Amino acid sequence: MTDLWLIGIGTGNPDHVTGEARKALNEARTVLMPLKGAGKDDLADLRYRILSESGRSARVVEFEMPVRDDTLPYTERVRRWHDEIAARWREAMDGAEGPVALLVWGDPSLYDSTLRIAERLDPAPRLRVVPGITSLQVLTAAHAIPLNRVGAPVTVTTGRRLRDHGWPAGADTVAVMLDGECSFQSLDSAGLTIWWGAYLGMENELLETGPLAEAGPRIVALRDKARARHGWIMDVYLLRREGGA
Amino acid sequence: MTDLWLIGIGTGNPDHVTGEARKALNEARTVLMPLKGAGKDDLADLRYRILSESGRSARVVEFEMPVRDDTLPYTERVRRWHDEIAARWREAMDGAEGPVALLVWGDPSLYDSTLRIAERLDPAPRLRVVPGITSLQVLTAAHAIPLNRVGAPVTVTTGRRLRDHGWPAGADTVAVMLDGECSFQSLDSAGLTIWWGAYLGMENELLETGPLAEAGPRIVALRDKARARHGWIMDVYLLRREGGA
Ligand SMILES: C[S@@+](CC[C@H](N)C(=O)[O-])C[C@H]1O[C@@H](n2cnc3c(N)ncnc32)[C@H](O)[C@@H]1O
Ligand SMILES: C[S@@+](CC[C@H](N)C(=O)[O-])C[C@H]1O[C@@H](n2cnc3c(N)ncnc32)[C@H](O)[C@@H]1O
Repeated sequence: MTDLWLIGIGTGNPDHVTGEARKALNEARTVLMPLKGAGKDDLADLRYRILSESGRSARVVEFEMPVRDDTLPYTERVRRWHDEIAARWREAMDGAEGPVALLVWGDPSLYDSTLRIAERLDPAPRLRVVPGITSLQVLTAAHAIPLNRVGAPVTVTTGRRLRDHGWPAGADTVAVMLDGECSFQSLDSAGLTIWWGAYLGMENELLETGPLAEAGPRIVALRDKARARHGWIMDVYLLRREGGA
Repeated sequence: MTDLWLIGIGTGNPDHVTGEARKALNEARTVLMPLKGAGKDDLADLRYRILSESGRSARVVEFEMPVRDDTLPYTERVRRWHDEIAARWREAMDGAEGPVALLVWGDPSLYDSTLRIAERLDPAPRLRVVPGITSLQVLTAAHAIPLNRVGAPVTVTTGRRLRDHGWPAGADTVAVMLDGECSFQSLDSAGLTIWWGAYLGMENELLETGPLAEAGPRIVALRDKARARHGWIMDVYLLRREGGA
């Protein structure tokens, strides 16, 4: 049985790395490193930088990420893609000395498929998960705001769900991830405030906030410009409704 | 204008501390340290341990935490309490060299009042927030589970709200914090799975999981025993509904 460690590394700033993650990277004997191709190089570089700063002596095994087949229906597409990634891990781990580590963006629990891919390995590895700072935490820290109102709930959701289902029933604060389309535009902006951030923790970090009616259009323009300039963008935001839950 | 740094330190394991937090503790000139009295000493010790491991040279200024007046209605009680804490910070910061730092349990954004107390300071300090690992992340890491189902939302809420409002409308996964009463007992357990953890990140960490109908009573018993033994308990849990959102 192999030891497989999924290590959260935070979301862009090498200083997000915890003591636990640093030690784990240092103790791992093999590190699996995905190659994601064009446009994602900034992120691969960061992984290498974190690894070298951890003082590690592990062997790094690179593997090509498979391409998603966009002609398939969503669920089937994701299922097959995870199967293929698991197959490539297996190949890369073949004969590798353990513990084997994977560096996971942010926290391994939050909208990340690494745990689901690990479940596909047979024989099952002995899993260890090391938590990491999420993009959501970097967002609230950068704006110096609480995630929740006193005693009130928070809904964490995706851009797609916000578009398809609207404002979640009973929600007071909504955090939106995985949104390629500024889906806040589909909401009635009355009484909503937005706190938005892109490239959080990185040099080119962008922040914007205000009543959704005013800040929304600014964010759409800023996002378009930034994506055109960098070739990619990652952003996350919080919406809060006036008056409370 | 004073620089006031709210530094997330994680939830019990000194190895949760990030590089950013370590550096901030090291650069701060003054650290405000609350004395919480009986039963909370384990937590104060941890703060001192983290401080000494950061290699800091800051002056530590201790202050007594005020006592909440339980005869007042909830909102008024919390408001007054925050006012009083802010007054004690002000006293403790008087003449202190900046940056002034406060060590915040977990992440400063999540069900924590430090940011709301900081807002009461006049003149307003220049705030900096350093994210920290939350108890929720230590829970999912310890159980090696994702927080969310693929593309599905997560509701983070309190024990009180779960009791008063039941299962949140439209929720798939519910994370419950600040629950002194095992409020999952108020739910219909059919189709629900629970992942529970107490003293997360600490030596005496407890974990329990299973279908709520079976694991629920085990958790109630385990929690009672542990609280009697240690004199205090902090626990958090995730509930997931079969079938998905
Ligand atoms: C596949 S999810 C992974 C989330 C990650 N596990 C975490 O803990 O933040 C990717 C989404 O996270 C958010 N995200 C991740 N890193 C970010 C960053 N540095 N700045 C802004 N948003 C980010 C974006 O919403 C993006 O669509
Ligand atoms: C006032 S809130 C603060 C939460 C903190 N800011 C965080 O990021 O986790 C306290 C609640 O957090 C949870 N909690 C904090 N530390 C914990 C630990 N070590 N183990 C289990 N639950 C914990 C419990 O639900 C507790 O009632």
